[in-house]
Amino acid sequence: MSFCQEEFNKLPTKTGPRPLSHSVSQLSADCFSSVGSVSSEDESPPQQKPQKTSKGLTDFCIKSIKQAAFGRKEIDIAQQGMPALMILRKRAGGEKPLAGAKVVGCTHITAQTAVLIETLAALGAQCRWAACNIFSTQNAVAAALAEGGISVFAWKGESEDDFLWCIDRCVAADSWEPNLILDDGGDLTQWIYKKYPSLFKKLKGIVEESVTGIYRLYQLSKAGKLCVPAMNVNDSVTKQKFDNIYCCKESILDGLKRTTDVMFGGKQVVVCGYGEVGKGCCAALKGLGAVIYVTEVDPICALQACMDGIRVITLSEVIRHADMVITCTGNKDVVTREHFDRMRSGCIVCNMGHSNTEIDLASLRTTELKWHRVRPQVDHIIWPDGKRVVLLAEGRLLNLSCSTVPSFVLSVTAATQALALIELYNAPAGRYKQDVYLLPKKMDEYVASLHLPMFDAHVTELTDEQAQYLGISKHGPFKPNYYR
Amino acid sequence: MSFCQEEFNKLPTKTGPRPLSHSVSQLSADCFSSVGSVSSEDESPPQQKPQKTSKGLTDFCIKSIKQAAFGRKEIDIAQQGMPALMILRKRAGGEKPLAGAKVVGCTHITAQTAVLIETLAALGAQCRWAACNIFSTQNAVAAALAEGGISVFAWKGESEDDFLWCIDRCVAADSWEPNLILDDGGDLTQWIYKKYPSLFKKLKGIVEESVTGIYRLYQLSKAGKLCVPAMNVNDSVTKQKFDNIYCCKESILDGLKRTTDVMFGGKQVVVCGYGEVGKGCCAALKGLGAVIYVTEVDPICALQACMDGIRVITLSEVIRHADMVITCTGNKDVVTREHFDRMRSGCIVCNMGHSNTEIDLASLRTTELKWHRVRPQVDHIIWPDGKRVVLLAEGRLLNLSCSTVPSFVLSVTAATQALALIELYNAPAGRYKQDVYLLPKKMDEYVASLHLPMFDAHVTELTDEQAQYLGISKHGPFKPNYYR
Amino acid sequence: MSFCQEEFNKLPTKTGPRPLSHSVSQLSADCFSSVGSVSSEDESPPQQKPQKTSKGLTDFCIKSIKQAAFGRKEIDIAQQGMPALMILRKRAGGEKPLAGAKVVGCTHITAQTAVLIETLAALGAQCRWAACNIFSTQNAVAAALAEGGISVFAWKGESEDDFLWCIDRCVAADSWEPNLILDDGGDLTQWIYKKYPSLFKKLKGIVEESVTGIYRLYQLSKAGKLCVPAMNVNDSVTKQKFDNIYCCKESILDGLKRTTDVMFGGKQVVVCGYGEVGKGCCAALKGLGAVIYVTEVDPICALQACMDGIRVITLSEVIRHADMVITCTGNKDVVTREHFDRMRSGCIVCNMGHSNTEIDLASLRTTELKWHRVRPQVDHIIWPDGKRVVLLAEGRLLNLSCSTVPSFVLSVTAATQALALIELYNAPAGRYKQDVYLLPKKMDEYVASLHLPMFDAHVTELTDEQAQYLGISKHGPFKPNYYR
Amino acid sequence: MSFCQEEFNKLPTKTGPRPLSHSVSQLSADCFSSVGSVSSEDESPPQQKPQKTSKGLTDFCIKSIKQAAFGRKEIDIAQQGMPALMILRKRAGGEKPLAGAKVVGCTHITAQTAVLIETLAALGAQCRWAACNIFSTQNAVAAALAEGGISVFAWKGESEDDFLWCIDRCVAADSWEPNLILDDGGDLTQWIYKKYPSLFKKLKGIVEESVTGIYRLYQLSKAGKLCVPAMNVNDSVTKQKFDNIYCCKESILDGLKRTTDVMFGGKQVVVCGYGEVGKGCCAALKGLGAVIYVTEVDPICALQACMDGIRVITLSEVIRHADMVITCTGNKDVVTREHFDRMRSGCIVCNMGHSNTEIDLASLRTTELKWHRVRPQVDHIIWPDGKRVVLLAEGRLLNLSCSTVPSFVLSVTAATQALALIELYNAPAGRYKQDVYLLPKKMDEYVASLHLPMFDAHVTELTDEQAQYLGISKHGPFKPNYYR
Repeated sequence: MSFCQEEFNKLPTKTGPRPLSHSVSQLSADCFSSVGSVSSEDESPPQQKPQKTSKGLTDFCIKSIKQAAFGRKEIDIAQQGMPALMILRKRAGGEKPLAGAKVVGCTHITAQTAVLIETLAALGAQCRWAACNIFSTQNAVAAALAEGGISVFAWKGESEDDFLWCIDRCVAADSWEPNLILDDGGDLTQWIYKKYPSLFKKLKGIVEESVTGIYRLYQLSKAGKLCVPAMNVNDSVTKQKFDNIYCCKESILDGLKRTTDVMFGGKQVVVCGYGEVGKGCCAALKGLGAVIYVTEVDPICALQACMDGIRVITLSEVIRHADMVITCTGNKDVVTREHFDRMRSGCIVCNMGHSNTEIDLASLRTTELKWHRVRPQVDHIIWPDGKRVVLLAEGRLLNLSCSTVPSFVLSVTAATQALALIELYNAPAGRYKQDVYLLPKKMDEYVASLHLPMFDAHVTELTDEQAQYLGISKHGPFKPNYYR
Repeated sequence: MSFCQEEFNKLPTKTGPRPLSHSVSQLSADCFSSVGSVSSEDESPPQQKPQKTSKGLTDFCIKSIKQAAFGRKEIDIAQQGMPALMILRKRAGGEKPLAGAKVVGCTHITAQTAVLIETLAALGAQCRWAACNIFSTQNAVAAALAEGGISVFAWKGESEDDFLWCIDRCVAADSWEPNLILDDGGDLTQWIYKKYPSLFKKLKGIVEESVTGIYRLYQLSKAGKLCVPAMNVNDSVTKQKFDNIYCCKESILDGLKRTTDVMFGGKQVVVCGYGEVGKGCCAALKGLGAVIYVTEVDPICALQACMDGIRVITLSEVIRHADMVITCTGNKDVVTREHFDRMRSGCIVCNMGHSNTEIDLASLRTTELKWHRVRPQVDHIIWPDGKRVVLLAEGRLLNLSCSTVPSFVLSVTAATQALALIELYNAPAGRYKQDVYLLPKKMDEYVASLHLPMFDAHVTELTDEQAQYLGISKHGPFKPNYYR
Repeated sequence: MSFCQEEFNKLPTKTGPRPLSHSVSQLSADCFSSVGSVSSEDESPPQQKPQKTSKGLTDFCIKSIKQAAFGRKEIDIAQQGMPALMILRKRAGGEKPLAGAKVVGCTHITAQTAVLIETLAALGAQCRWAACNIFSTQNAVAAALAEGGISVFAWKGESEDDFLWCIDRCVAADSWEPNLILDDGGDLTQWIYKKYPSLFKKLKGIVEESVTGIYRLYQLSKAGKLCVPAMNVNDSVTKQKFDNIYCCKESILDGLKRTTDVMFGGKQVVVCGYGEVGKGCCAALKGLGAVIYVTEVDPICALQACMDGIRVITLSEVIRHADMVITCTGNKDVVTREHFDRMRSGCIVCNMGHSNTEIDLASLRTTELKWHRVRPQVDHIIWPDGKRVVLLAEGRLLNLSCSTVPSFVLSVTAATQALALIELYNAPAGRYKQDVYLLPKKMDEYVASLHLPMFDAHVTELTDEQAQYLGISKHGPFKPNYYR
Repeated sequence: MSFCQEEFNKLPTKTGPRPLSHSVSQLSADCFSSVGSVSSEDESPPQQKPQKTSKGLTDFCIKSIKQAAFGRKEIDIAQQGMPALMILRKRAGGEKPLAGAKVVGCTHITAQTAVLIETLAALGAQCRWAACNIFSTQNAVAAALAEGGISVFAWKGESEDDFLWCIDRCVAADSWEPNLILDDGGDLTQWIYKKYPSLFKKLKGIVEESVTGIYRLYQLSKAGKLCVPAMNVNDSVTKQKFDNIYCCKESILDGLKRTTDVMFGGKQVVVCGYGEVGKGCCAALKGLGAVIYVTEVDPICALQACMDGIRVITLSEVIRHADMVITCTGNKDVVTREHFDRMRSGCIVCNMGHSNTEIDLASLRTTELKWHRVRPQVDHIIWPDGKRVVLLAEGRLLNLSCSTVPSFVLSVTAATQALALIELYNAPAGRYKQDVYLLPKKMDEYVASLHLPMFDAHVTELTDEQAQYLGISKHGPFKPNYYR
């Protein structure tokens, strides 16, 4: 093992959260589709059960190939909400910009990522795919992918060993040497870096979406050990200012309604954190007539909340009156036992933030409190005096667990990932060095433009005179890179 | 059969809809709770299956008494959202304003109506209850009611014969002569009127909630054949200006999300009708960033839509661009085949209005169109060229079929019903004649006041000087009866 | 003096306010036009200064005929915002539905009422006009009316004697016997009733807009002494649900900005009263990011505020935190010295309600408080410790004093007035008796329809089948009379 | 003249606009206070009219020292809206962080900048001040500053020669050598650079707010000729994400109402550009019920508009239906004659963008069109067929000309300027080199925190554990520098 590898190994498996970030792909993670999962699945380990597609393919490992038709239907529905990828397929036409590309991927396996994977294939890439989360795989979708010829290794409910086995099967295969990585979380990258260092050095590039994965890559780059160019999709404008806001705006009401049937009108809701996620949640809640309070650490975000007509207050001050508490901070222990003890009966507590640390659950696991599972994802925690607090998804992400995320919002990130792969694969030598890059502004703009037809939106074209006056090209980029 | 009965019999079983009305109880009808129904129920006819409560009671007929514990949990949850009824129980205290009352009821049987029924019982009434709809009974709730000592005769999936059998069992029982009717739809009233005319004449009063039932009562009154006073709950201020608006505002997004996972941001939505229901839908949709168009027949409502920033346009003009069409008119054939033929692929069509007539479904039952059930309550209708239109709940009420209605909104109507019964039962002789009455304004205000603590709302009390200045009592009513 | 006259005389000159009402015409009263008034006016009494129009007419009494050109310009601008009246002029065409009508009017004299008066003239009526308020006359507009041939008797700053003199000059003129009254406040009606009883009895009708005037008419009717039919314009749907809401929504921000340049974002604003006026104010304030609290006496309105996401609280509880207090109650002494004493420095207090009684000004006229006029309509009231409270318009109506009201909103009421006159003048004998009438629903709808073209709004026409299904005419009325 | 000077001279006097920027100080420029200007001012040139303050000072040149009391009142009002500067004054206490600083300033001279200037003085600085705009000086405020001991050289209506004379008098004075520049537009900087190069080199720093000035500084820096550190206040987060949005949100309605009394409800408004300014305008307009369309060049901003529920369309497509057109692009010729020719009569056109180039006025200066000045800042342009288009402020910035900007919004930028001066003056040698700097994130956060008490906002303090978890200091900065 090289020194380089050792370095990577030192990276924490679970790095600390970054306050600003919020991975949409994690959000959408295993969002159960509205159909829900077929319940009576065969429970034998997929590894021990060789399966065959209708065309006789066997190079995959999933729960059950029989679910393929159902999964295909879900993929079809998702396609209708992901116009950009469909346009990319059409535009490429005979050209195949990824011809020769061998993409190894590790993402959530959902109808939406299936659309991405099949787009890469349509553009000429060979793909092998694993899941980045042991719970989030939609088995029917995995089946449809396999039936469609993608070598998928993933199922819902993998063990940790299964997880790595699947990744390894994606990387190591006969007559297959991947030249591109599409990663969400950095586990695949780390695996190749550690186990297949020579392969790692030959890569044409890495595309990474998650905060955690990006953090690892920057650390590696700082240490001078990143041997290939990497694209940071997480910090693109469209991710930060589009996905993070609208994804939460669209899903917060849904997640709360599906679990609790709660009425929003007139309810006093505390939103902890007024970053992109908090802003999205507040916008939606305001639309249905909730009375909103925000807690904030950062005075700039606090000032924005004020100007937007929201009272900024500490959680301790407002907790007695709260009907709901929604955490969106990326921080830990934002809601503590002390807060819980002062809540009114019936208060609903949930998390829309980065990880499952925001609510101090440990403090609720004490003998005097009774936990009562009243519905899936819904626990009543009962105090000795009869007070009940309603905890959703055990403090995990609400929209990951209890709502769906519109395909369209995911489409923006997926299109960015596809373009990042195309860019890395086709870039002339020297354009990208061994570093972490943001996607060029112009590509951000291109991704956005691919989504406008969905809205019948017509952008205005600059005249030559106007472009000259502004000192920019008629075709963009229209803003400096730092503009958000 | 008396002349009086004949008269009643002439009334249409299905009266035409009234454009202004929208029965919340119908809305909430069989709104499936978030828990959903237990699927593997015994299918034998309840009539043939004698059951016993834990206390040995047998005077009821439901699906399965075993579901009582589960139903009780749902009733407990509902209670928390229905503060007014709980306050009524407390305030009555030892007093029992319904002591001696014998209430026969016919309503949807849901967790929320269970809270109402048990409140009547707590106030001293004896109750026997049937369902007003053959599909809407929550079996577990019926079980909990039976276990609690209420004589319930109802189950999900009754036949038409079952339906009348259940009603009859509620009316006719040994040593039981009802003196009050609580009806939703008028079927129970009609049954007693027809079958038990002598009993009918001895009633102390009827409380009716539905548009249809009210229409029947007014017809009867007009014909001089209403022998008892009746309370019209449907046209109370709180029903019209509270339930109808907020119920729809709370449920439209939910119903669409649960069925289609649709994104609302930027979607072009046509709302047909800008009455209370349309106004509620538009408010919610606007909050999530939809682009809204309204169609209207009435120039006054049209002008309101304009001033609220919504374009008023005919459906034909806008249909090509619509991503969703939501009917809220109470009218028939609002969306016709001609409109369907011009929709874009993927357009979602659903109904929030009065009945299932708003969308001309018959025109879609033609051979060239394929219907494809993709999810429960969701059909894709496929044109020969591949275009798909998404039809929800087969044109029935969306929030009846695909979403839940907050208990709190239902609480307002339920409290009004309870008060109406108390008023009729305790009114001094002569206060009410053989006519249809609106609840006195002051009681409307009282119902509203019972719901304010839920919001920590503090009303201001008039000083003596102010009351005198305004020429009203310090304790209300604060507005004339016609004020809305 | 007949008994009948005595009765009328008993009516209070200043009747108590009605909590629900809010006269738009009063609102718009002397709203200074954006141009402001020409300041260096001749101060000699107009009565002593005979003037002549360019055509030699002399039958009028105004400040200065020289301002006619300027006033004409303002009338032209107003016309553009009053489409309904302009359409009425066109539709009448050669027909002249008011040919032979002799209308004596007493209203605010503004550019908007000028459009109304000239419309009546265009429809064939002869008109003589006085002002209903001694301060509200726009002199330039009066000049333009006179120059156009209307006999106007009004100027800004009349004395009480002038006021009655002007009214009398309108009623009594050679070869002139009015047959219709258009009144705002009832002063003209009372004058004719008292002074010219025989003339009063010959009238074809009275159209009255104000709460006070309506109150007087109903009293008269109740006493059996109303000898002519009268139309109550104040309680038409369009007035209550259109003018009252949108007029305030459009003018509250304007009035506050013009006087104080205040920022709304994040400001804590207490709106006293959540009737139509309060609802309009809250909607506007919310749009600019204010944090709103409502005080209410009526639990129904309080519940609406709650559901709309507004905290309902007593003024005493919230006063310490208020940045602004806006009264919209129609009540008296809503803001008292006790509240003032507890306000923070800089708090702005103003009135959007019915009269100038809502703020207890008397309590502020004490020696320890200094009043400091910092700008027109803006007083700083200074406490001994240096605290300053900002009082606007000395507690009079803010939008009457400090903002303008859009012509379009006034157009709705003006068109209703014109139609009411036409209806009374042309109604077949017997249609109207000696009573107070609401305008028929259908005419309300007609007025609304005349305003839709302004918004390019296209209403949908019912098919014959639909009209039959609904049991109404294709052409309306579409709603029952009581519908609001 | 050195080479260095030559370089600076080459810089265009009027540099091209930058698309992203929007100077709030320009916005607030000569926003007339609500009081308006005293009209009957002495017209003799101030230079020839020696004046004295009540304390006998003469080192200033303004319109009339007699207006000092009135100006002081305006400054007092402004202070109440600028809490941060007042806190800075208090916090500094005896410390005087600017003791020894000699600040030469060139900004708009308004009540708000007066608060800034007097704050600098209170912190120990000596100040001499000129106006950055020949029209924007509030003479009364200048008088109050002079009376307070500031050497001000500015009046409303300077000639170009006056303008430079004033600047020169600020720089060159006996026993005075400025060591800090506070500039808005770069004219002062350029003057010193050119005329007093040796003085320029000795400066401790420059603080510049405007886009144009920043552009000049970057050019100079690029050319290696910036000899002193400069602070770019324009691109601070608070400026971009706070001022630019909320300033426009607060002033767009005001500017339109004061000039045209227009109603917003239901009006079809085209906002050209959906950057910060456009976003602010749209938010306000939506709040009052306008129907909004956006035109955009940049697909990212276009996508944001879509998701916010606004139709994105080209101006040509929508122009026929527009009731108002508001430009917010920073571009030129956004509204052209071709658009004007297709507007409906009554359409209002105004500019909220960067400069006066957005509307192609030249194309309207043709003989067939009549211009008619109907009110100050309001022209009707009349087509041969009688069509009128309403042009505001002759295409100059609406909020600069026709509305006021809340002191509070300006306070944020002013506080940033003060802190930038303090930082540059007190920074240890070597912290800042000869370059253009953004204010450190932490100072942005500090400025924001100074404004929170105005809203009673309470930020939450991180615990030690939380700060460690996030990897940041408890006291900020809380976000990376690039976060917006």
